[in-house]
Amino acid sequence: MTAPLRVGVVGVGIMGADHAERLASRIAGADLVAVADADVDHASEVAARHPGVRATADAFDLIAADDVDAVLIASPGFAHEEQVLACLAHGKYTLCEKPLTTDSASALRLVEAERDKVGRPLVQVGFMRRFDPEYVELKHLIDSGRLGRLLVLHNIHRNKTSPPWFRDSSSIVNDSLVHEVDVCRWLFAEEIETITVLTPATSGRAPVGLRDPQVAIFQLAGGGMATTEVFVNSHVGYEVRCEAVAELGSATIGLGQNLLVRRDNGYGGHIPDDYRVRFARAYDIEVQDWVRACRRGTVVGPTTWDGYAATAVAEAGVASLATGRPVRVELADRAAARHLCPEQGA
Amino acid sequence: MTAPLRVGVVGVGIMGADHAERLASRIAGADLVAVADADVDHASEVAARHPGVRATADAFDLIAADDVDAVLIASPGFAHEEQVLACLAHGKYTLCEKPLTTDSASALRLVEAERDKVGRPLVQVGFMRRFDPEYVELKHLIDSGRLGRLLVLHNIHRNKTSPPWFRDSSSIVNDSLVHEVDVCRWLFAEEIETITVLTPATSGRAPVGLRDPQVAIFQLAGGGMATTEVFVNSHVGYEVRCEAVAELGSATIGLGQNLLVRRDNGYGGHIPDDYRVRFARAYDIEVQDWVRACRRGTVVGPTTWDGYAATAVAEAGVASLATGRPVRVELADRAAARHLCPEQGA
Amino acid sequence: MTAPLRVGVVGVGIMGADHAERLASRIAGADLVAVADADVDHASEVAARHPGVRATADAFDLIAADDVDAVLIASPGFAHEEQVLACLAHGKYTLCEKPLTTDSASALRLVEAERDKVGRPLVQVGFMRRFDPEYVELKHLIDSGRLGRLLVLHNIHRNKTSPPWFRDSSSIVNDSLVHEVDVCRWLFAEEIETITVLTPATSGRAPVGLRDPQVAIFQLAGGGMATTEVFVNSHVGYEVRCEAVAELGSATIGLGQNLLVRRDNGYGGHIPDDYRVRFARAYDIEVQDWVRACRRGTVVGPTTWDGYAATAVAEAGVASLATGRPVRVELADRAAARHLCPEQGA
Amino acid sequence: MTAPLRVGVVGVGIMGADHAERLASRIAGADLVAVADADVDHASEVAARHPGVRATADAFDLIAADDVDAVLIASPGFAHEEQVLACLAHGKYTLCEKPLTTDSASALRLVEAERDKVGRPLVQVGFMRRFDPEYVELKHLIDSGRLGRLLVLHNIHRNKTSPPWFRDSSSIVNDSLVHEVDVCRWLFAEEIETITVLTPATSGRAPVGLRDPQVAIFQLAGGGMATTEVFVNSHVGYEVRCEAVAELGSATIGLGQNLLVRRDNGYGGHIPDDYRVRFARAYDIEVQDWVRACRRGTVVGPTTWDGYAATAVAEAGVASLATGRPVRVELADRAAARHLCPEQGA
Repeated sequence: MTAPLRVGVVGVGIMGADHAERLASRIAGADLVAVADADVDHASEVAARHPGVRATADAFDLIAADDVDAVLIASPGFAHEEQVLACLAHGKYTLCEKPLTTDSASALRLVEAERDKVGRPLVQVGFMRRFDPEYVELKHLIDSGRLGRLLVLHNIHRNKTSPPWFRDSSSIVNDSLVHEVDVCRWLFAEEIETITVLTPATSGRAPVGLRDPQVAIFQLAGGGMATTEVFVNSHVGYEVRCEAVAELGSATIGLGQNLLVRRDNGYGGHIPDDYRVRFARAYDIEVQDWVRACRRGTVVGPTTWDGYAATAVAEAGVASLATGRPVRVELADRAAARHLCPEQGA
Repeated sequence: MTAPLRVGVVGVGIMGADHAERLASRIAGADLVAVADADVDHASEVAARHPGVRATADAFDLIAADDVDAVLIASPGFAHEEQVLACLAHGKYTLCEKPLTTDSASALRLVEAERDKVGRPLVQVGFMRRFDPEYVELKHLIDSGRLGRLLVLHNIHRNKTSPPWFRDSSSIVNDSLVHEVDVCRWLFAEEIETITVLTPATSGRAPVGLRDPQVAIFQLAGGGMATTEVFVNSHVGYEVRCEAVAELGSATIGLGQNLLVRRDNGYGGHIPDDYRVRFARAYDIEVQDWVRACRRGTVVGPTTWDGYAATAVAEAGVASLATGRPVRVELADRAAARHLCPEQGA
Repeated sequence: MTAPLRVGVVGVGIMGADHAERLASRIAGADLVAVADADVDHASEVAARHPGVRATADAFDLIAADDVDAVLIASPGFAHEEQVLACLAHGKYTLCEKPLTTDSASALRLVEAERDKVGRPLVQVGFMRRFDPEYVELKHLIDSGRLGRLLVLHNIHRNKTSPPWFRDSSSIVNDSLVHEVDVCRWLFAEEIETITVLTPATSGRAPVGLRDPQVAIFQLAGGGMATTEVFVNSHVGYEVRCEAVAELGSATIGLGQNLLVRRDNGYGGHIPDDYRVRFARAYDIEVQDWVRACRRGTVVGPTTWDGYAATAVAEAGVASLATGRPVRVELADRAAARHLCPEQGA
Repeated sequence: MTAPLRVGVVGVGIMGADHAERLASRIAGADLVAVADADVDHASEVAARHPGVRATADAFDLIAADDVDAVLIASPGFAHEEQVLACLAHGKYTLCEKPLTTDSASALRLVEAERDKVGRPLVQVGFMRRFDPEYVELKHLIDSGRLGRLLVLHNIHRNKTSPPWFRDSSSIVNDSLVHEVDVCRWLFAEEIETITVLTPATSGRAPVGLRDPQVAIFQLAGGGMATTEVFVNSHVGYEVRCEAVAELGSATIGLGQNLLVRRDNGYGGHIPDDYRVRFARAYDIEVQDWVRACRRGTVVGPTTWDGYAATAVAEAGVASLATGRPVRVELADRAAARHLCPEQGA
């Protein structure tokens, strides 16, 4: 095995603490080594959840530390410019939560610093939708050309209620709509040339001062177009959908049913060949849970009794197969498995 | 950090090689240390994919090795009894692929050996559906009592074509139906009392000698019932569905749209509150891919230019918000980002 | 025009009154002329809803009447045999609600009477699912051979609660399951050879004495098989589903989304070519409502103002098409349409 | 019975011939008496399909005829103004296909003529979506206030290919988008104040000169907004969808699964109480087909043998209910039903 990647997390608010937990418990090949937060008590509390992780108030100390190979930045946006510059100065791989910075001039300074000081990419921006399996499948379909040229995207982006720091209407553009900005640039593989943000009647449920919902129109450099409804106080739940309309058909994601394609007088989706596709996550979770339990010195999941009982039923089933008649399953006394605690048996 | 769990894999056929890959690249807290296979060349080939992993022809050596904390058994079923007994003798945590053994007498011997030699659970059987998020959600719903008492399960289990080792009709019972055996025992939390296996007209697409499809009826100890269609040459794809019918409603999984509940004159599903639910996998994949890329010394995913361009569009969007008019996005010359290879930019 | 068919309805309970209303208001080419019911007051009440319709207590008078060309029998099942015999004697076309009669001996007597006294079919039995567009589409697909040979049917038949006359478990077989009996015979185009009716744990919500749900297995003469769950106290609503499993794929109806087909690693449905398919019912309802309103001397639906306003918006739209800019719609004063009552305008 | 409404159809192109067929065979209470078309041979051909219907070349003769109570106008749009004026002059009820007229000035003249010459509504415009059950259900939901105030509508309107008379881009606005114009006015119950029609990249599959697809934005008088994609050469099929976004939830139609509502962290639809809802159309079609067959002197649909066989199976089912064992169905010799032609039996 090559050595694990030693990662520090800068900013452990909701998102950063979530990333710390992820790095510590679900990501192979990474060791979480340090967390930094201006609120050092909170940093210590997060660190304490993960044995061997240290806490600091100073992001720049963490970034400079010799035992930190890579930095995940989840601090507030206004702090990003300096922190990313420090990462570039120390040659640290950086995953910076969106937005890269809060205005385009500072963002451009980071592009140029990366170019001039490092000369190769070192920073990745946290537009995580590019990693969502549904978006990835949509991207592959578009790029395959099977639907012809992409013409229009329709996006829906709804939150149940807006967070308290959404105080004016521009927050909706900067913090919510920006995801669709990235999605459109990525799916079209073109820059956006013009943007129009329209404000329909505002919901009576939106906080005062917030024009919500909003409808944005993007015109792409190549002539494509995108419509996006952003509604951050929809009172329903979190909904993200995207429909791509191309010359030979359309494809929709976010309906909770994977990629749905419409073409040739039909709509539909894919049925995989294989249990390893359908149950890929089940296998991952099974083995991850098993590893976690073993490290705690316990066993969870189906027991030897479950294995025995299933085999006994299958034996009776094979007997029934010959006659089509019901066959009684004869099981040993459950005392044979008295060492298995009740939660683990059937 | 506590030390990682050192895992050996016994049997690296399709399933075992898949598990080895999983342990090496997607499971946190585990180190794959050794693989064993009677075909030692194949074992060496699999080991070579993962630096630091050794290969052996002798499963019992692997099981006995001091640097192996836990064993994942993916060898053919007939080999399981002896290998699991060895694991019990050495006190190794064991994840044994189903079936536990190929007949109920030997399976019962393993239950008793575990009880008598270890006195606590050490072995987990690989019924992975218990870890599938949809099945887990269904189990929680049933156990919550919100639908009242569970009365009937309807299962569908279809494979596109059967594997070559399905030579007679009993394979369908032993290798396919056995999953529903476990699912029914688990969801009802009761043993199966009688089983009937019926054989409708056989598909002309099934290999000679295979009565396919089959319809099985399970009668549970508490009076519940399950119907299962197993059709291993459906010529469609891999389909696994389960509908649970209870006193106050029913719930279905496997339709490709998560848990679908019917009750009170309505059908429907859940919309989460939060992006961390909807995009949980996207975040996991994003960070896993980032860690993997960093360890290889590369960066994949959205670049600083992507971060810059998104910020520039959002700025124009905020300007448009004030007037409702289109606003042109002014981007710097792309040369600012000439250090980013084309695949990484938009 | 050929003369309308003059129809009498025998039995005007819930179903019969529904049929009388249908014949009087939604069926082209028919005149409802008479209704008969042992409860003559109720018959008179139903007749009074439809001008020119007479009521009688005597079904046989109605059947014999010269001005009755055809008889719809919706009386209780025990009365069917004699009434159908009378229809045969008078050579009247007969639509007899299911069941034809309440036991097979009497039903066979009707088959033979029709053969011997009329020598051609005169009686149709009210298995209305054969006319349901979804079932019809499924039947066509099966008969087309595109899915290969039909092997298995899975039926679900649920009622929210059972009617008060369902006093013992055989009612579920005779009154509910009988629909699936007909559906299976029709879809397989074969007779049923054996039937098994199983009783899982009974729902605590079922009336005392009713074993509910039930699971029935039909073995067809050609080897096919059908499973049916009948659950008449499901507490959810009315659900009827049918999945047909054939050699090359499967097809499901009753999910509220028309025919869903699974084959070749995909699932999906049809998108019609034409607005006349998608809006066929809308056109029928529009014209039926218009005819009904005209006969009452009124107009409902979109008015001239609606036509004017739509044209004015389209004109502005064409102007906008040239520039991509918003164009204001200039409408005349609404007083121009002061003769249109408010409900009819937008 | 009150006398049927005597209807004349003006213009028997595709739509008009469809309406003539509808009036003659599926609409209760109407007699089709005459059809008019400038192409009198075609008018005669259509008339000949329906006994007793006369043909004329002169729409005004038809409108003036004493035996015509009501007129359905399906002629080309440019002819509508004069024909509707004639209907108003003769006091005939009129159903005029959309558009009412081809420009707003002439449409306003019709509004005023109706007001001044008749003083009450006499003309209905053929915006048939208001009669589509899904749109009606959506309208009821919006008007119920259960979702709070309506804020935004998203419409999709796609045709597989455009008809040959769509020669320039304005046809898309005038003939396709105009449906959404009416839908928005109706659902919001407000006038449209501004309209913007945008043209994304044109599909390579669209005829030369047609900017297709188009994206339209409507601003409603009360502040609501609607987005509409119209794509008349989508190469997929006919798709019409509408999503209404309101303060407390959203509702979508046109997905082929009736009204789908999202609110309170859930999505879902309705399951009816009753078979009379689920099978309403099946009953209508059953009885309509029966009436049509009787008038032709034939019987279609389930026969006495079907009724007998179903009863015999149910009898065996009741026997099985007592034991849970398979019971063989004993049927009489099929010769008992030799008078039934094979197509009618199972």
